Amino acid sequence: MVQQNLEQQNTAVEGIQEHRAHIDEIDKQIVSLLNRRTQHALAIRALKPEAHMGLYDPRREEEIFSRVYGFNEGPLYNDSLREIYQGILKVMKEIPSL
Amino acid sequence: MVQQNLEQQNTAVEGIQEHRAHIDEIDKQIVSLLNRRTQHALAIRALKPEAHMGLYDPRREEEIFSRVYGFNEGPLYNDSLREIYQGILKVMKEIPSL
Repeated sequence: MVQQNLEQQNTAVEGIQEHRAHIDEIDKQIVSLLNRRTQHALAIRALKPEAHMGLYDPRREEEIFSRVYGFNEGPLYNDSLREIYQGILKVMKEIPSL
Repeated sequence: MVQQNLEQQNTAVEGIQEHRAHIDEIDKQIVSLLNRRTQHALAIRALKPEAHMGLYDPRREEEIFSRVYGFNEGPLYNDSLREIYQGILKVMKEIPSL
């Protein structure tokens, strides 16, 4: 019985390790995408004066949230994605121009 | 001269639209990855009692930050990524179990 419990425990620990390895791989891709996103955001910022557009565009932010909700197939809620994206947009605004 | 300025402006506006289209495509991938990340996080949470592991593991959080910095090739700063990831980890902890 003790042996069986230990095996169950080991199986669970191994399962957790596998899921964590998947998460690490996903995080690698997320970090790469966030950096690519930042490059485009910086390029847009550089073009805005010539395009006679203001640096801050609340309509574009709402458009981003709407699109993000449209892409969402769960299990995350739209509100959770909004919270994450508010952090992403805040950081993108704060990063100095290249 | 007015004509030339208008052309420059149009070129800048078109450039912004192209960069925004790239950002929309990147956001689609980020949302998909965040949802896959959530599935793994929920699976880990479900396995933790059997693995005799506590639900909150500050060492694992620091490990995630370290890995994220290791993946970072810029232009985002590590501190910016930390801010974004604090939001991601917060949301993952708050989502109810399936």
